[in-house]
Amino acid sequence: MTGSPRFRFAVNVLPRPGILDPQGRAVEGSLVHLGLAGVSDVRVGRRIECTVEAATEAEARRTVERLAAELLANPLIEAHAIELLGAIAGAAIGAAVDAAAGESSR
Amino acid sequence: MTGSPRFRFAVNVLPRPGILDPQGRAVEGSLVHLGLAGVSDVRVGRRIECTVEAATEAEARRTVERLAAELLANPLIEAHAIELLGAIAGAAIGAAVDAAAGESSR
Repeated sequence: MTGSPRFRFAVNVLPRPGILDPQGRAVEGSLVHLGLAGVSDVRVGRRIECTVEAATEAEARRTVERLAAELLANPLIEAHAIELLGAIAGAAIGAAVDAAAGESSR
Repeated sequence: MTGSPRFRFAVNVLPRPGILDPQGRAVEGSLVHLGLAGVSDVRVGRRIECTVEAATEAEARRTVERLAAELLANPLIEAHAIELLGAIAGAAIGAAVDAAAGESSR
């Protein structure tokens, strides 16, 4: 590992509006069994979190954009959004990445 | 539909730290084929978005918390986090929900 900064990103992938979402319909179908009222418009997608080591945030974001567009999402039926979760300047990074992961899963 | 306020939430579900994540390993294994360097610590989870109609934000959040804990996540191996994406006061809500959905998938 070098001393380059690292950036923690999340990629949210969701079915595009109008695209059939059978998992969302399955969740809606379970609401009555849970006794939950007032929930609607459920969409089920994926969330991918990753750490990128790069010289700048812009370079890291380009890497995540390629990852999302070429591997994580199917652009015909899914839309994706990229979130920066945190940045870590230099060494002693493992603990900070763990902390960021914990934060996002509170 | 009543005139109660509506709240759009996202629930992010991710494997707990230390829990095996075969989808994350599969993404990492594909990085070399994409020519992407510097990506690590990939975790793959789910993102669920839903609209909740309730008298208050606190009541809506309790509904989402139950939904997440009882249906969307397996608490033994997954952690979840709830995000408020937006709130809509009264009638003419459909368009606003669509707008919020579009915003989250930019």
